[in-house]
Amino acid sequence: MASIAPTIDPSGNPAIAAQQRILALPVTETRRLADAIRVLAIDAVEKANSGHPGMPMGMADAATVLFTKYLKYDAADPRWADRDRFVLSAGHGSMLLYAWLYLSGHAGIGTDDLKNFRKLHSVAAGHPEFGEHPAIETTTGPLGQGLANAVGMAMAERHLSARFGKSLVDHRTWVIAGDGCLMEGISHEAASIAGHFKLNKLTVLWDDNGISIDGDVSITSSDDVLKRFQSYGWAVKRVDGHDHEAVAKALDAATRSSRPTIIACKTIIGFAAPTKAGTAGSHGSALGKAEAQAAKDALGWTAAPFEIPEDIKASWEAAGRRSAGSRRSWLKRLAKHAQKADFERAMAGKLPDGWHESAAAYRAELAESKPKLATRVSSQKALHTLVPAIPELIGGSADLTGSNNTNVQGIPVFTVPNPAGRYIHWGIREHGMAAAMNGLALHGGVIPYSGTFLVFADYMRPAIRLAALMRQRVIHVLTHDSIGLGEDGPTHQPVETLPGLRVIPNLYVYRPADAMETAECWELAVQRADGPAVLALSRQNLPALRFEAGENKSARGGYVLAEASGERRATLIATGSEVHLAMQARETLEAEGIPTAVVSLPCWELFGLQDESYRAQVLGEAPRFGIEAALGFGWDRWLGQDGTFIGMTGFGASAPAEDLYKHFGITAEATVAAVRRKLG
Amino acid sequence: MASIAPTIDPSGNPAIAAQQRILALPVTETRRLADAIRVLAIDAVEKANSGHPGMPMGMADAATVLFTKYLKYDAADPRWADRDRFVLSAGHGSMLLYAWLYLSGHAGIGTDDLKNFRKLHSVAAGHPEFGEHPAIETTTGPLGQGLANAVGMAMAERHLSARFGKSLVDHRTWVIAGDGCLMEGISHEAASIAGHFKLNKLTVLWDDNGISIDGDVSITSSDDVLKRFQSYGWAVKRVDGHDHEAVAKALDAATRSSRPTIIACKTIIGFAAPTKAGTAGSHGSALGKAEAQAAKDALGWTAAPFEIPEDIKASWEAAGRRSAGSRRSWLKRLAKHAQKADFERAMAGKLPDGWHESAAAYRAELAESKPKLATRVSSQKALHTLVPAIPELIGGSADLTGSNNTNVQGIPVFTVPNPAGRYIHWGIREHGMAAAMNGLALHGGVIPYSGTFLVFADYMRPAIRLAALMRQRVIHVLTHDSIGLGEDGPTHQPVETLPGLRVIPNLYVYRPADAMETAECWELAVQRADGPAVLALSRQNLPALRFEAGENKSARGGYVLAEASGERRATLIATGSEVHLAMQARETLEAEGIPTAVVSLPCWELFGLQDESYRAQVLGEAPRFGIEAALGFGWDRWLGQDGTFIGMTGFGASAPAEDLYKHFGITAEATVAAVRRKLG
Repeated sequence: MASIAPTIDPSGNPAIAAQQRILALPVTETRRLADAIRVLAIDAVEKANSGHPGMPMGMADAATVLFTKYLKYDAADPRWADRDRFVLSAGHGSMLLYAWLYLSGHAGIGTDDLKNFRKLHSVAAGHPEFGEHPAIETTTGPLGQGLANAVGMAMAERHLSARFGKSLVDHRTWVIAGDGCLMEGISHEAASIAGHFKLNKLTVLWDDNGISIDGDVSITSSDDVLKRFQSYGWAVKRVDGHDHEAVAKALDAATRSSRPTIIACKTIIGFAAPTKAGTAGSHGSALGKAEAQAAKDALGWTAAPFEIPEDIKASWEAAGRRSAGSRRSWLKRLAKHAQKADFERAMAGKLPDGWHESAAAYRAELAESKPKLATRVSSQKALHTLVPAIPELIGGSADLTGSNNTNVQGIPVFTVPNPAGRYIHWGIREHGMAAAMNGLALHGGVIPYSGTFLVFADYMRPAIRLAALMRQRVIHVLTHDSIGLGEDGPTHQPVETLPGLRVIPNLYVYRPADAMETAECWELAVQRADGPAVLALSRQNLPALRFEAGENKSARGGYVLAEASGERRATLIATGSEVHLAMQARETLEAEGIPTAVVSLPCWELFGLQDESYRAQVLGEAPRFGIEAALGFGWDRWLGQDGTFIGMTGFGASAPAEDLYKHFGITAEATVAAVRRKLG
Repeated sequence: MASIAPTIDPSGNPAIAAQQRILALPVTETRRLADAIRVLAIDAVEKANSGHPGMPMGMADAATVLFTKYLKYDAADPRWADRDRFVLSAGHGSMLLYAWLYLSGHAGIGTDDLKNFRKLHSVAAGHPEFGEHPAIETTTGPLGQGLANAVGMAMAERHLSARFGKSLVDHRTWVIAGDGCLMEGISHEAASIAGHFKLNKLTVLWDDNGISIDGDVSITSSDDVLKRFQSYGWAVKRVDGHDHEAVAKALDAATRSSRPTIIACKTIIGFAAPTKAGTAGSHGSALGKAEAQAAKDALGWTAAPFEIPEDIKASWEAAGRRSAGSRRSWLKRLAKHAQKADFERAMAGKLPDGWHESAAAYRAELAESKPKLATRVSSQKALHTLVPAIPELIGGSADLTGSNNTNVQGIPVFTVPNPAGRYIHWGIREHGMAAAMNGLALHGGVIPYSGTFLVFADYMRPAIRLAALMRQRVIHVLTHDSIGLGEDGPTHQPVETLPGLRVIPNLYVYRPADAMETAECWELAVQRADGPAVLALSRQNLPALRFEAGENKSARGGYVLAEASGERRATLIATGSEVHLAMQARETLEAEGIPTAVVSLPCWELFGLQDESYRAQVLGEAPRFGIEAALGFGWDRWLGQDGTFIGMTGFGASAPAEDLYKHFGITAEATVAAVRRKLG
């Protein structure tokens, strides 16, 4: 061992000397378990000739302590509802996760998968992908997201524990985060939320290796990270991340803390690599054959690539069974639990019986009352039906409750003393909210919905993207969805935000036209278990346009709201707050003898899924006119080359809403004029 | 005064009692100056029946101390290059800014403008809009952005002071920020950057009023904000924000600090409002006639709405002239300064003589050498010409320097000891980077460019939007621009990011196809003084496709790269890394006797600006095929209803790039097959 590198590194890299001191210590069993993670990371990255060996090599020790002594899991059932959640926020270190899953005896991941690391169709993707293996709790890679997901998971646990009791829900959430996670702004929002809610079952192991891609973290940051987390009300610890006993002591303390805990694990990135350890050189690429072999030599590891000595594999598999007894006891408790059926239903993401009857009754009432309401208010009315009927719904707003109309009378707020509450004051933390909501949904047992202004979808976009990629049921209530917002001006007016969201795959963007469509879209959003939704809602009042409640017409994404009185000469296609303008225009045009149809298009994605013939029938052969108080980007798909778009062409302005609609020419009159021009 | 509200407020609102104590103090002159801001805010919001009176009313005292005694400005020349910068990060309190500008005697803003607060075409927009008045330094409203802009401004000052000397550049940057600014994640990134670079000329006055829209900040946050800023290396102070002397003392200390300073100004939101002070009720809507009048009564203010007593106006105007002498001295120093011409040119945003010759020479060399390079590498080569030729260019990367290829040999790094450096290691802080870059550009004298992966444009999106809205020359180098990124997988593969950026008004998105186009697009980006650019660049190598350097063909956004050998039967339209696939497909098709043209479309926005006839000629009458390794959203515009798109239909996957192109069917073969199918 002493041969691999001089005690004093000629490059002056102080990590090398530290590494030598650690490698000179007697080799314990847990060190050998950790080494198994290291060598698998080395081998897989080497074989793929791509990936990040440094982080798994550095964090293997701390992770091994966590995986073998603290993390509550049973490799035989990775979806056990009361398992601890483990989130690898520093997702580039994915081999740490895959190595552990393989070593601990999880089905569905074998050495072949590790050999196919970063290859097409491999479970072992470049970054951990939710859905690739049941033990992968969340998709990570975009830094900081995992940390915020974990905050949401810990909130879900807290809430469900209050709802179903500790005998069913009593688990912890563990995170491994890197410097990058903590430099990202989202870490501030997430950590602040966790501190505020005193999420004491949340523990973050910070891989404090002092290295990022560009070099030493000291090049870019002078933060006192632990002081910062103290300012959020967290408990903090600092340990040598290669000292198994010290790590265990810190994890012990974390399990007793009344606050969330962050443990700075001082580690050497690329630990064991004779020249690249402690440098950015081990971060994001294969070590190279010689360095890889020398690292194994340094560890005293003699097995062939991807081979694990039997005793080590057996020890790891025993660790994978460590909580099997807890799981069996839990299953017994569940079997005789009064809320068994409800718990299983909630965790399966199934909606309760009767919810749809309530929703249908509400829609029937709307058909009668024909209210003239802003769709944000219609949304609140829909929530007054849905939230009591679906106990999984947990709402909230990023400090715009009164504007987003996301709260429901009688539904208590989620607080430290009352975690059974189902309304979350997220604070002015849109990104943290959206990412924590992903964690709430991933945990299971809850269906989160948010509130903010549509334009601030930009602040949440990285998290919305991940919800779409992970196909999570996360619902964003985004109000003030156009220049109809008025006086707050262009910074707050989402002109490009609608098309900007429509481009995200798997995300359904709903823009309902009246109270009825709002109710329909809400139903669709909660029914869709495999993907996120945005509800784009108006600030301004809108007349009722739909007077029968039988069929959920929004379910097809678009439909003929008003057919032409004769053979169509024009089709007006609109969404949301512009549909009533189209209806007004239609009235004028019909009076002028121009048979005109109006199509409401509340959800482009659903409309896109309909068969060609239905779409052709709805859109018709007559000249088409799109009306939407947003940019026209993407409208060509529905309007054809020959269509006419009436909407925005740039940013908005600060003025009362009515003035803006006139100023930008988005009116019934402008629509009528456009049709007249077109028809000549 | 004692009559307006009981000393002990029956609602139990402790702010009322505190307010009473303050109002009972002798009225000083500066209190009267502050009251002028308060009443103008009250009057304007009342008249508009929309807006945020609470913040200006609460922060009027601290702001008055700043505006009358510390801020270096001359109302006669709001664009004086060496003025202090003032950023109202809490932009909703815009009336504080407008009231000050009017009171201090700035031209271009009068009582009529204040009476038209939040009306169409008013200088006094709902939120401060850059460009509406020369003294508005930046557009604020989306919370936290202003704070990060200010960090960039302070960096620009530091850099330019090193370049031109203290005699020309020696000013401070002041920020008023609210709780919302500090809760947003971007505040973490920005404050951490400021602390790291020890930006001691940056001072933040935090309006510590304890109130946000949903109620008490304590509902959502338990942060120890000052401790947090200490963890970033900031100096911190806490003062009574209504105590003018205490504020002055803190500002004094800030001007002597070797670190950035944050001053917690404990204030009463809506100060003087008899029932709404200290509550969310004064935050975001008009006080109402009775409360407005009672607030004025409490202040002892008897003038008519929008009227300011002459002595107060005179005092304010004197404050507006306080630094006129400094400006005159500065002008004298400038007149005889050796770098006068260069300084004026840089501040005017004009490029130096000779830069284009260098760029043209580089392109001529490319025409000869025909290199096969990833466009990210071509970009670096272009930078090796541009950065030395244009001393205003300041680059950087969010910890991906080696991947983004944004650094230039021989160009030193911007550090505390060497602020003349022109390369910034931004750390893993994309959002902070983009917003600080807006501040760099707004300050003037520098042209910032960034680096990160294209997919992380999502993290920067709110700041990119503001750069577009403010028409700032900010250039984002976004590499790894498709599934060509390979193994890192779907989290890192921007499938929807390209169309997602193309929807942003005023933003030019360039996606060059080879080294020549990359050089052209770089030239266009630096030449465009009135708007931001994104350069979407490949990770993978791309062959040279253009062999003559005369005309900058990218300047028209799109052009015929290869005309068909006979009458066109197909037009292949592609961007970036897919253009060479189109060229391969063309070769096969031509060999099969199908005359095929290839159109390169590096910039949709520029192509959209060309006249109809040019576009028609380029796109042609033959069936069109779009090829882009991204989602097809928006392509209908160029392809027509009858076009065919070859690209992505959803998220990517983790595998080597070549495998992915095959897997997703984005190949020359697939293109050939599509053409054959279409032509039958």
